[in-house]
Amino acid sequence: METDFKKDWERDNQQIKPYKKDAEYSYTLGAFPTYELLKAKPEVVRKVLVDSGYTDQENLQKLCKGNNIPIETNNKLLRKISDKENCYVAGVFEKYSCELRADRPHIVLVNPSNMGNLGTILRTAAGFGIYDIAIILPGADIFHPKAVRASMGALFRLNHHLYSSFEEYQQQFRNHEFFTFMLNGEHPLTIRDCPKAELFSLIFGNEATGLDDSFLEVGTSVIIPQSPDVDSLNLTIAVGIGAYVFTNQK
Amino acid sequence: METDFKKDWERDNQQIKPYKKDAEYSYTLGAFPTYELLKAKPEVVRKVLVDSGYTDQENLQKLCKGNNIPIETNNKLLRKISDKENCYVAGVFEKYSCELRADRPHIVLVNPSNMGNLGTILRTAAGFGIYDIAIILPGADIFHPKAVRASMGALFRLNHHLYSSFEEYQQQFRNHEFFTFMLNGEHPLTIRDCPKAELFSLIFGNEATGLDDSFLEVGTSVIIPQSPDVDSLNLTIAVGIGAYVFTNQK
Repeated sequence: METDFKKDWERDNQQIKPYKKDAEYSYTLGAFPTYELLKAKPEVVRKVLVDSGYTDQENLQKLCKGNNIPIETNNKLLRKISDKENCYVAGVFEKYSCELRADRPHIVLVNPSNMGNLGTILRTAAGFGIYDIAIILPGADIFHPKAVRASMGALFRLNHHLYSSFEEYQQQFRNHEFFTFMLNGEHPLTIRDCPKAELFSLIFGNEATGLDDSFLEVGTSVIIPQSPDVDSLNLTIAVGIGAYVFTNQK
Repeated sequence: METDFKKDWERDNQQIKPYKKDAEYSYTLGAFPTYELLKAKPEVVRKVLVDSGYTDQENLQKLCKGNNIPIETNNKLLRKISDKENCYVAGVFEKYSCELRADRPHIVLVNPSNMGNLGTILRTAAGFGIYDIAIILPGADIFHPKAVRASMGALFRLNHHLYSSFEEYQQQFRNHEFFTFMLNGEHPLTIRDCPKAELFSLIFGNEATGLDDSFLEVGTSVIIPQSPDVDSLNLTIAVGIGAYVFTNQK
């Protein structure tokens, strides 16, 4: 019996390997994103790993028990799946899919390439109450532990959906008013004179290349006024300002 | 003669080591920040290093020659000072000090801890035409190659100054109107009703702890409205929105 149990346990943990894009599961690395995962999406959590040196075990035990989630002290496995040495808690969760809601505003990221940026954008979107995020592929892996960590767990509060092309997204959401953020956008986004919309899609291009000129014809193109001293604003800053301007008009 | 020259050359390059905080010089890693350095602050450049595989040598040679800056092909030294393998160009520059201008708006960072954030903030400040940055120590090293790289070279377009305490800064700039960004700030920063000022200081706390409550008494405390679904906005996003709101009121 004990041997069988041990075999099961070993097989189970052998499956837990450093993250790969095509794996069916991913990780929250760190206490904060793991708590966010447990609170917002307990149904996808397979297991919680904890380091024997973690001091807040009691709260974590309670949260896991309430959701029937196994919790395991395993320093070695924690070090294996995280590259940071100070990772004391991790959640193992199954990847899931969502649909965007048609009655709420969206942020649309066309080919985002940096996982840290992607995570920061998710956190910012949730911060401004935009809960539906479209990603046009190819793009950074939204379930990569780096993206999850940069989102501070905001990923689990949001709906996200991957589209193989912008046209696919566009055809599904015909009632949204589209705003494309472009360095050659026509409409300067100033505080005194910014477009108003109830149901909007804020559309942003890739970090290096932005949106190509075909997006000038998709809805209203806007530019965040900026000095000639920089090449462009950082993508996360542009999304933050766009989300702020469109959600804080009252 | 040749031996002497070789010795000089070797001694010279022996001094070029992976970056240390107390060194008198630092590096721009990558072509973009190196070009920015050469254009904005040629007087502090000691040398430019280039990989034999770099394809745009001609422009770089011209820019260096015009400023009497030695340029050296040295793949090995490039790899030594950068941790990225794809660094084809680097600038070696002397650290310098600046004074902030009393007649222009400032961004004040109290104990910023992350070098990437610090660089992104510099880039954003320059993007919104705020060219004077105060850093209250302790804080991340503004000359660290990571900060320089994240700034995309915007560091060289700005004045920055380090202060040992906020009081030291405050006493020097009595004509500036102070705005402190705090999660318990009194004044919500909305588009319809945001404070107006010509000569302002936008003051931000550390990534993890923000500004402590003593800053509620320093000028006008503001909060960027945000949903309860996030702990806080990322510091760089908060600075971006603050800089945008205060510079785009026309």
